[in-house]
Amino acid sequence: MTATTPSSSARTRLAPGERRTQLLDLGVRLLATRSLDELSIDLLAEEAGISRGLLYHYFGGKQGFYEAVVQHAADDLYAQTAPPSEGEPLERLMASLTGYVDYVVANHTGYRSLVKAASGSNDALRAIYETTFTALAERFFTADPGGLVIPDTPAVRLVLHAWQAMVEDLVLTWCDTPADLTRDDLLQVITGSLPALIDTLPPPK
Amino acid sequence: MTATTPSSSARTRLAPGERRTQLLDLGVRLLATRSLDELSIDLLAEEAGISRGLLYHYFGGKQGFYEAVVQHAADDLYAQTAPPSEGEPLERLMASLTGYVDYVVANHTGYRSLVKAASGSNDALRAIYETTFTALAERFFTADPGGLVIPDTPAVRLVLHAWQAMVEDLVLTWCDTPADLTRDDLLQVITGSLPALIDTLPPPK
Repeated sequence: MTATTPSSSARTRLAPGERRTQLLDLGVRLLATRSLDELSIDLLAEEAGISRGLLYHYFGGKQGFYEAVVQHAADDLYAQTAPPSEGEPLERLMASLTGYVDYVVANHTGYRSLVKAASGSNDALRAIYETTFTALAERFFTADPGGLVIPDTPAVRLVLHAWQAMVEDLVLTWCDTPADLTRDDLLQVITGSLPALIDTLPPPK
Repeated sequence: MTATTPSSSARTRLAPGERRTQLLDLGVRLLATRSLDELSIDLLAEEAGISRGLLYHYFGGKQGFYEAVVQHAADDLYAQTAPPSEGEPLERLMASLTGYVDYVVANHTGYRSLVKAASGSNDALRAIYETTFTALAERFFTADPGGLVIPDTPAVRLVLHAWQAMVEDLVLTWCDTPADLTRDDLLQVITGSLPALIDTLPPPK
């Protein structure tokens, strides 16, 4: 591939929206094994075989490109962790959590750098991260509308947020240091710890 | 106080090491209700009634000042959460965790900014944060040398790390949104969740 043939005929057949999506898919794929800092416009242009100028045209600069890739990755994570539409609440949540673990394991380098970027001073990336974090939490209530497993109270929402932080740390650390735990062991810790945590709360007033 | 009398007689009686410690104490106190970004050399100089130049002399610049204040805050946290030297392992750990909650609650603005700085790109601040995080984890094993409450296995160390991330998120979020939980309720969640979490692990091989 060369970076100097932005208008080769095979490539310009795509509509601009499709081409943009294709570039974001590539960005997310590159991010799976790279940190955000390592994902430059130059690298994406080279991998896509288009010019830097065209990439700037699509994304309006480096910050716009980062935001678009991170939003695309967040949408991906949200889609890949969708609970099945049928089944018992607990089974549906289990399936969603399994999807989360597999997603983070497959994309842990990029995911880790997103967590870091979200904690840092980039407000736009932090907003994307927090919106996704909240949307994932919301699923516990929509997948279990009767509140059988996860009653919807302010205290449960507080511990659910902290439990999400724990799960994120757990999966990311496990990727580097499996500590004799299999993926199934890890899932057992994740799914078993949430009801145990809720059990430590005082009964709702 | 004025910023133009760095050598007034009352102040110069202190040895340089004592003066430096006094300045760090002031920095940590100012950090309790401020983020790291808001804690400038100018503010510290003004509050201490000394010149910027003298502060630079003690700390060798802004980065040196931040590192010294954060290290001092970390030492403070570690000291204030020391378990009592006598007692049952569980009681000693409970006392230590109570100290942690009270410390974070009293210093939550500064603590939150340290977590943020540690997740960001400042390697020196991250190193201080991680060393402290690890030292706090180590206490669970030294306070319970028989492993009665917290057996020392790689899997327990993995979940302990994640549990620490959870506790940090829980206490910081609770400071903003108490969610009908008292400090005692919060302590109940924190102390009850660790054994519950360890119970979700498979038996050691």
